[in-house]
Amino acid sequence: MKDLLIVGGGPGALSAGVYAARRELDITLVTKEFGGHVAETDKVENYLGFNSIQGMDLAKKFENHLRDYDIDIQEDIEVEKLYQENSKVVAELNNSEKVEAKTAIVASGSDRIKLDVPGEEKFRNKGVTYCAVCDGPLFQDQNVAIIGGSNSGIKSALYLSKIAKKVYVIEVLDKLGGEKISIDELKQKDNVEIITKAKVKEIFGQEDVEGLKYEDENNKEKSIDVEGVAIEIGLTPNSDFVKVDKGEKGEIKVDDKMKTSSNRIFAVGDINDKGWDQIAVAVGQGCNAALEVEEIINKQ
Amino acid sequence: MKDLLIVGGGPGALSAGVYAARRELDITLVTKEFGGHVAETDKVENYLGFNSIQGMDLAKKFENHLRDYDIDIQEDIEVEKLYQENSKVVAELNNSEKVEAKTAIVASGSDRIKLDVPGEEKFRNKGVTYCAVCDGPLFQDQNVAIIGGSNSGIKSALYLSKIAKKVYVIEVLDKLGGEKISIDELKQKDNVEIITKAKVKEIFGQEDVEGLKYEDENNKEKSIDVEGVAIEIGLTPNSDFVKVDKGEKGEIKVDDKMKTSSNRIFAVGDINDKGWDQIAVAVGQGCNAALEVEEIINKQ
Repeated sequence: MKDLLIVGGGPGALSAGVYAARRELDITLVTKEFGGHVAETDKVENYLGFNSIQGMDLAKKFENHLRDYDIDIQEDIEVEKLYQENSKVVAELNNSEKVEAKTAIVASGSDRIKLDVPGEEKFRNKGVTYCAVCDGPLFQDQNVAIIGGSNSGIKSALYLSKIAKKVYVIEVLDKLGGEKISIDELKQKDNVEIITKAKVKEIFGQEDVEGLKYEDENNKEKSIDVEGVAIEIGLTPNSDFVKVDKGEKGEIKVDDKMKTSSNRIFAVGDINDKGWDQIAVAVGQGCNAALEVEEIINKQ
Repeated sequence: MKDLLIVGGGPGALSAGVYAARRELDITLVTKEFGGHVAETDKVENYLGFNSIQGMDLAKKFENHLRDYDIDIQEDIEVEKLYQENSKVVAELNNSEKVEAKTAIVASGSDRIKLDVPGEEKFRNKGVTYCAVCDGPLFQDQNVAIIGGSNSGIKSALYLSKIAKKVYVIEVLDKLGGEKISIDELKQKDNVEIITKAKVKEIFGQEDVEGLKYEDENNKEKSIDVEGVAIEIGLTPNSDFVKVDKGEKGEIKVDDKMKTSSNRIFAVGDINDKGWDQIAVAVGQGCNAALEVEEIINKQ
């Protein structure tokens, strides 16, 4: 039986892994992939120590840091069920294997929220994306709409403005959210048009996306021609597989020590109900959880 | 009146500064110095993204990151009093100036705990130090004792083992604490001797330190000849100047959002009662506090 099972490959998981490895715990880390949302971000400029770095490069640095240590890593694997059974934690994997450990740190992050309008499913990967930065090159010299004008939408718009012909940013509220420094930068772009108080009703086209319809502030239906639609309206915790207490939106409830309602399962990063969904916060929480786990292991 | 006053120059303060600056808050940062304990550390290997880096270099990277932004920085200045007065925060500085701000984030860290034995005060800077790494070069080819066998003591011992002739690590408990990977490394050093269950009673000498006396596990007094004594037995929050609720040891009580008992004063890093005293945790807490502050400012 392992000391610690870590689920996830983003900053929370990797920070926990580095800390726990340095305390010489026997660790298995299971993840679908490495990087998390960091890898999908254009530039990261708010994680202390890196003035400005491509998200993909930072994600690689994080992964390399973990790989300095001798950890059993199971990549391309998903955890289907995770639960505590007496004094151990059991994970059922999608390859029919099981992992048993004395403790677990869940850091499987969050998924993109769907817009839930006609055409969204039909045109997925035919113009519709949930990660503008990942699919950016596909939109070269095209007209693109970003749905969602908070931080990730703005970042994506900044990035796409360098590649696409024209970028619309469509926000349902009366103003953009997120970092003012990025909003100011966006407003100076000639090929960006910001449309607020706009509710997207439909994504239309034949084989591929050809445009979208939205309701403006006077409830009038309008239409714009775009070949790409990037939906960036938020995140939902990827917590279905974990058997612990959660809030209404699926966020795992944790105490100050990142401990869930199961006393051997911890949760860090976007998946829990504490702190902002930021790289720095996930890294700090991963550290905290790993040091708490070490105390549990040492007491046995 | 400023939007935000930040007190401190370590990771918590600088992470808060970067986040708040990117939200374009009007900020004054007051600090005695930059770096905090990070700058006093030999190698940092557990802050995600940097596999291994000299503490001083990491502290410089942190400072440079903040200096990318247009922030009013008051260096070499101490805050003597900090309190909330109605809907503003007032800081009285040691240069007789005052800073008034809508909110404050206190991140002034912690000071070294004293051993409280005869000779400690007398030989301070005459062989007695609270930062082995800072004063390491002074101990070239000498015999040195490190008092305290938890993480910082072990790190210091590893560092000094490369410089000093012989290094004693003296721990009052029955074993060393902290990272096992570092303990293992220490045990492999030929010029390091670990003495556990030893209570230091006195530091003696003429002009400079010549040795120390300790009580061993059988209550017998023993003596070793050393020219240097590095005391690394822990930290105490540097919170005397802040008028908010604190715990017994001076740690500032904060809620999940890093808010103190004053609703416009936040506290992050070693100074508060939440989380482990680690760089990663301070950086995450600084981020959280800055984003909370932005919400307060935006509501006004």
